[in-house]
Amino acid sequence: MPARELARRMRRKDVSAREVLAAHLRQIARVNPQVNAMVTLVAEEARKAAARADEEAAHGRFLGPLHGLPIAHKDLQDTKGIRTTYGSPLFRDHVPDRDTLLIERIRQAGAVTLGKTNTPEFGAGSQTFNPVFGATLNPYDLTKTCGGSSGGAAVALACGMLPIADGSDTGGSLRNPAAFCNVVGFRTSPGRVPRVPTSSAWNTISVLGPMARDVADAALLLSAIAGPDARAPLAIPEPGARFAHPLDRDFKGVRVAWFQDLGGLPFDRRVREAVNAQQRAFTALGCIVEQAEPDFREADRVFKVLRALSFHGQHADKVQRHRAKIKATVIEEVERGARLTGPDITAAETQRSRLYARFAEFMARYEFFVLPTTQAPPFDVNQPYLTEIEGVPLEGYIDWMRSCYYITVTGHPAISVPAGFTAEGLPVGLQIVGRRQDDFGVLQMAYAFERTQGPARRWPAVANP
Amino acid sequence: MPARELARRMRRKDVSAREVLAAHLRQIARVNPQVNAMVTLVAEEARKAAARADEEAAHGRFLGPLHGLPIAHKDLQDTKGIRTTYGSPLFRDHVPDRDTLLIERIRQAGAVTLGKTNTPEFGAGSQTFNPVFGATLNPYDLTKTCGGSSGGAAVALACGMLPIADGSDTGGSLRNPAAFCNVVGFRTSPGRVPRVPTSSAWNTISVLGPMARDVADAALLLSAIAGPDARAPLAIPEPGARFAHPLDRDFKGVRVAWFQDLGGLPFDRRVREAVNAQQRAFTALGCIVEQAEPDFREADRVFKVLRALSFHGQHADKVQRHRAKIKATVIEEVERGARLTGPDITAAETQRSRLYARFAEFMARYEFFVLPTTQAPPFDVNQPYLTEIEGVPLEGYIDWMRSCYYITVTGHPAISVPAGFTAEGLPVGLQIVGRRQDDFGVLQMAYAFERTQGPARRWPAVANP
Repeated sequence: MPARELARRMRRKDVSAREVLAAHLRQIARVNPQVNAMVTLVAEEARKAAARADEEAAHGRFLGPLHGLPIAHKDLQDTKGIRTTYGSPLFRDHVPDRDTLLIERIRQAGAVTLGKTNTPEFGAGSQTFNPVFGATLNPYDLTKTCGGSSGGAAVALACGMLPIADGSDTGGSLRNPAAFCNVVGFRTSPGRVPRVPTSSAWNTISVLGPMARDVADAALLLSAIAGPDARAPLAIPEPGARFAHPLDRDFKGVRVAWFQDLGGLPFDRRVREAVNAQQRAFTALGCIVEQAEPDFREADRVFKVLRALSFHGQHADKVQRHRAKIKATVIEEVERGARLTGPDITAAETQRSRLYARFAEFMARYEFFVLPTTQAPPFDVNQPYLTEIEGVPLEGYIDWMRSCYYITVTGHPAISVPAGFTAEGLPVGLQIVGRRQDDFGVLQMAYAFERTQGPARRWPAVANP
Repeated sequence: MPARELARRMRRKDVSAREVLAAHLRQIARVNPQVNAMVTLVAEEARKAAARADEEAAHGRFLGPLHGLPIAHKDLQDTKGIRTTYGSPLFRDHVPDRDTLLIERIRQAGAVTLGKTNTPEFGAGSQTFNPVFGATLNPYDLTKTCGGSSGGAAVALACGMLPIADGSDTGGSLRNPAAFCNVVGFRTSPGRVPRVPTSSAWNTISVLGPMARDVADAALLLSAIAGPDARAPLAIPEPGARFAHPLDRDFKGVRVAWFQDLGGLPFDRRVREAVNAQQRAFTALGCIVEQAEPDFREADRVFKVLRALSFHGQHADKVQRHRAKIKATVIEEVERGARLTGPDITAAETQRSRLYARFAEFMARYEFFVLPTTQAPPFDVNQPYLTEIEGVPLEGYIDWMRSCYYITVTGHPAISVPAGFTAEGLPVGLQIVGRRQDDFGVLQMAYAFERTQGPARRWPAVANP
């Protein structure tokens, strides 16, 4: 059942928060052992929170837009009194003494925290495995990866273990697991969901965002977590309540640019076909769809410089002191960051500014840009990352993620929505990129597209009762 | 006469744009040879633009909020068809083929461009001299500097050669010349006035802003130049029209923090006394004034890293090819940028994030922070920069500017307003820092303060008829 329908029923007192929680805990007990999405459970605390929500409701008071909705938080987010490992053995028993602002807002909106969702070590890489909890499996094929880094969240949603979940995205971490697991993941505009506290307040490549089974539920969660905060220098002033507005809109005559190959990137034939088959859905909505692409030259090197700097800033001290206990790719990023020079960094800023100017010009002509979320479908869970696509070899551990991180460097909002399945039954995601800070427009377009897909949801067999 | 009064009279057709222009051109012809503020004049083009404005007005059409107001642009801003030298001999005869967005907006708002205002070479340093045009002199004492880098603009305003002017600010370039010349300079929030085009779209230390003789005129100009643009990733969404609203506000009970020494910085006794004498003005407005300061630890090193990076990004290629023709301090900045490492830069970002968190917490307790704009009054125009204040030696060419650039790194808006004169008749500026993105609140506070100073303006003798 959609989160907003659950919320509605709790408001009408057709169902209690305790009942909703119990149902989700039962599903977790039944399904999670097979997929390993939820890594920490706080059932007792959750029961108390649900009871409090019911008591408030009994007095006619509702806590907020997420009143009584169960949620779990990505294990990169600090949660007060709840173990937070960042997927790292160094933090196996780490219990923060405060919530991040994201978690605070979710709690204040009335949601019931029932645990934490799995993530790769320090969120590095789009494959969810780590030495603390192991791998999270794709519910549509248990031999495949669920993607990442918000992998636990995506799987928990896909299996009905949670109605909403939070995630974060640097190189695609909200979008890629959504695509691999047949759910929705929204990379919001930088500053839309403030990151507090942070050691990189001006970082514009890492963002927070909502995940859900459908677009309207993602908007519901976003309405609770978006909005300015004086502690975030780049926070967008618009209040979160903006996202509680109805998403209906007429798309007649709206110009949509359709991807080709992003300047020569390989795309798995099955992904390309599934996404291209959806072009007619946009046409049916009245959109004017044209094959057109912005020029992504230099996006790759820009992203790699910014990413290495970001990892260096966050993890250099840990690598120095505990090298043996840190994932090789994290060490690699930190060392790349350490080798960078002032000129490398100013060159990347200049290139990124040029790329942005070209992209903004492109988006003045088109309101949306549509492309596959990922360049390939879910792959073997024992493979840490993809090393080739359609015979084209890929070098580093994130090179298979370019269709996501090319969008990251543009700074524009992008959502991944389910776009069908391959012949083997593996989910495929379609990515919709919108204009600067037009997160609402992106949700509207995704919502309209989603409605062309018919109401029947294909659940993974593992989640079925 | 204030710009808004001129604008009002042109609207009522009491006076024509041609007459207003002619009066300003006469003042320029009379006064500019003594102070050297206006470095390029386009009187013919200006006369045509004024005639067009009058023609539109004759048909009852007004071009915008700046209809018919003469203006000149800082010589760092590209102006289509008008020589733009950046104060560098390399660009002595450079004529850009397009306007920056700032200039476009000013023209579209109906202002009449009559030329360019002087600036140090590539805006480096807060003393306005360069090998192309020489030094701009302080109109209150022709043996002193006018400050910089928006020095030409400040002097032109102080002498009645212009009613409004644009400027830019990295380390204090809107505030310091305003303080030295008895006018108003507003360092807006990053993103308030979008910088387009730019090679550093994510730079948050360099901003554009208005200058004027009083606060309401600065607000008038800001209403025309503020507002989002899709080509500026960090642009604030709020429309510029916000700043056309009346600035009156009751300040009873508003908490104001009053400076002490910014963690041990030297302040010239005369500046300290002039600014401290104004504390009673804030008290008289009903403010609760307390001596309190945020912790500016690490602000100095953070600013120097960001500044060196910014100069490297903009000027490294020129230094490589034309070293002999570039100012030593610019070369110094570029070389400092070249020597920086990834770890230097991530350390600066971490330190800046900490500083921001402390500052935001401080500004949750106080709505405004008041301090002197500059640490010393205007100094000898033949001295490139101050090397000591009150017996405390200063090392680099910008070290005397800390009271400005400590505020820069916080990312908060700050205005400099006239706060009286030293016994020798040298102007002193008072700096009001507001909450995150509360540019309107800063204008309101400055407007209320300004009204406590009485209506009589002390003009420089050189400007009197």
